[in-house]
Amino acid sequence: MKYQSLAIAVLFMATTGVSLAQKTPTTVIEDFKISATTQQGKQYPQVNSEGRVRVQITAPEALKVQLDIGAVKYDLKKDDKGVWTGESAPQDEGFHYYQLNIDGASVPDPGSMYYYGASRWGSGIEVPAKDQDFYALKNVTHGEVREQIYFSKSNNNMRRCFVYTPPGYNKDNKRYPVLYLQHGSGENETGWSGQGHANLIMDNLIAEGKTTPFIIVMDNGTWTPPAQSAPVSQADRAKGNWPPKGWADAFAKTLLEDIIPMVDSNYRTLADQSHRAMAGLSMGGMQTRVITLANPTIFAYVGMFSGGSINLDDIKTAPAFKEKTKLLFVSYGSRELDNRRDVLRGDPKVNTESLNQAGIKTHFYISPLTAHEWQTWRRSLHAFAPLIFK
Amino acid sequence: MKYQSLAIAVLFMATTGVSLAQKTPTTVIEDFKISATTQQGKQYPQVNSEGRVRVQITAPEALKVQLDIGAVKYDLKKDDKGVWTGESAPQDEGFHYYQLNIDGASVPDPGSMYYYGASRWGSGIEVPAKDQDFYALKNVTHGEVREQIYFSKSNNNMRRCFVYTPPGYNKDNKRYPVLYLQHGSGENETGWSGQGHANLIMDNLIAEGKTTPFIIVMDNGTWTPPAQSAPVSQADRAKGNWPPKGWADAFAKTLLEDIIPMVDSNYRTLADQSHRAMAGLSMGGMQTRVITLANPTIFAYVGMFSGGSINLDDIKTAPAFKEKTKLLFVSYGSRELDNRRDVLRGDPKVNTESLNQAGIKTHFYISPLTAHEWQTWRRSLHAFAPLIFK
Repeated sequence: MKYQSLAIAVLFMATTGVSLAQKTPTTVIEDFKISATTQQGKQYPQVNSEGRVRVQITAPEALKVQLDIGAVKYDLKKDDKGVWTGESAPQDEGFHYYQLNIDGASVPDPGSMYYYGASRWGSGIEVPAKDQDFYALKNVTHGEVREQIYFSKSNNNMRRCFVYTPPGYNKDNKRYPVLYLQHGSGENETGWSGQGHANLIMDNLIAEGKTTPFIIVMDNGTWTPPAQSAPVSQADRAKGNWPPKGWADAFAKTLLEDIIPMVDSNYRTLADQSHRAMAGLSMGGMQTRVITLANPTIFAYVGMFSGGSINLDDIKTAPAFKEKTKLLFVSYGSRELDNRRDVLRGDPKVNTESLNQAGIKTHFYISPLTAHEWQTWRRSLHAFAPLIFK
Repeated sequence: MKYQSLAIAVLFMATTGVSLAQKTPTTVIEDFKISATTQQGKQYPQVNSEGRVRVQITAPEALKVQLDIGAVKYDLKKDDKGVWTGESAPQDEGFHYYQLNIDGASVPDPGSMYYYGASRWGSGIEVPAKDQDFYALKNVTHGEVREQIYFSKSNNNMRRCFVYTPPGYNKDNKRYPVLYLQHGSGENETGWSGQGHANLIMDNLIAEGKTTPFIIVMDNGTWTPPAQSAPVSQADRAKGNWPPKGWADAFAKTLLEDIIPMVDSNYRTLADQSHRAMAGLSMGGMQTRVITLANPTIFAYVGMFSGGSINLDDIKTAPAFKEKTKLLFVSYGSRELDNRRDVLRGDPKVNTESLNQAGIKTHFYISPLTAHEWQTWRRSLHAFAPLIFK
């Protein structure tokens, strides 16, 4: 359970699953292929057309080896050479964190590439999606993802972010709008380009003429909840008593006082409200909500991906948000919406429709058949990008 | 043995060590600290003042857990809670690849960050060096490391490289010289910025006014040796019969036909011979040797770090190299030199002195108390950079 509750956004999910040890199902379609996230030269992990993940590891002296994915542990079987193999139940399309368990030790799969999520660098697996073309690596002109190291006055330390500059940025002299794009809880500034493929999504959209080219800034918005004497109940969350007041202030300060001035100084940006957007997933969406409601003269476009919604009460306390915001975009995965409706101050779709009626341009998007995972957020960015800076 | 022979440059090293299982030594100085390469929030791996690496992992049902580093396996000890702990013999200063072995399974340490080397993404550990200041993250103006995706005509595929642009590149309109800097066998285009800290080495040198600012291009020069019916003998290597003729041609073609034109088109480069350098470590140094000897009108500065040397015979067959090359830099770690002298067509120091006498400006550098590892190569870049583009 710990693994899942870290892998998903601990803050905002009401998780109720239990981690079960489970036998491999008997009917498995034998069309497994090496995954896009398998290390070059390795044969496993593999994925089949059902979305089952098959792993293999040599561990001749081990007594028990399991694949731990989606909060379920699947037993592997050992052959006479000491090679363990086994697969999971079908997984949703897209990207999932996972790990192996060898005689009680939770370790990364030596066959996979590694990603930061669930508050650790560890294994990830790509289950091919029917719509994977929109984030595929294609022979189009590509932008760059730049590692930017800078000093933060408000934190008195060195920080790092990644900055996507669109194709053409190096050859022209134009100024560009900027989207500040945040990861979820337990993730970091590498998530949106690593597992999110934000750069490829943009390169493909731009090549097709479907979006205004813009800069994307991906920084680290990690927030550590204060130690709690008791777990925060769902009722408390529903009442808005969690997270505690002021929880997003530290990142708001870093963003407004350090990140935005640094970006406007180092890049050819259009440095005004109408050319600045903020979006995020899960915790990053909640940070986007708090920060943009409080700073409507800074951001014109707002994206909340699986990160709550904004309702009429919120607007009453932030009238300038209504006046200044050019678009509010709210999205969810279809598989997560039912679980979350009660903890998010109302149904996000209903909230979004109320805002539309109140004169705030809003857009609601549902990612089909995905949960609180990266495929939802890749699709959300793909739907959001064409709507902004027009 | 396999692990070590991959970790070091399989092509050019005559390795003779044997992987030994070994008890933890009895006298260990108890001043272990979390390593710079330990994941944030994790307590292990740690390193002490002797350079011992201590790892810890919970594996309650495991029968045997080992730390595998520097071609030696060290047994860990289990406590009554199922937590295994143990440490290695003292390691050289700098960066080392390693892994854990749990009941026969070789896996990454879940506590470490991951690096590409030994032909896999896996664990690495930083043993603090007395001279670590030259690659420390400091509050100076930093350049950027940019992920550049491009189409390669000569390979008919998409490729990726990393491009370091120096501080100021985004704010001025100057053109800059370019160093093409290659990794070793079993490594890739991430090595020089990941474990090599090439960007921090440059940022610090530039902040101190010790080097001309220049662009660094780090691409993937992976070369897979053809299958051999028998291992290549040391005598064969000494005779120059290995690697086979033409082994560096594929990367030479990619570099000359794809990478250099792409860089000169996308970046503000000084696109002539006198502002172009090539260097590399181990296999990358040997590639540098072959490519620069064959293309003296393309490169003016040449760096070979633990990658052989150039002798008078080489110059006889490449007279333009003597005429056009402004500097040849050759370096080794002090701990690797004795082992390698016989396989490298003569003592690299003697070769370098002969070239100096023959009128080719050369520089020979020895990294104190390091072997065929990254600390040698970090120091080599730090010594090489101030000597070029002057």
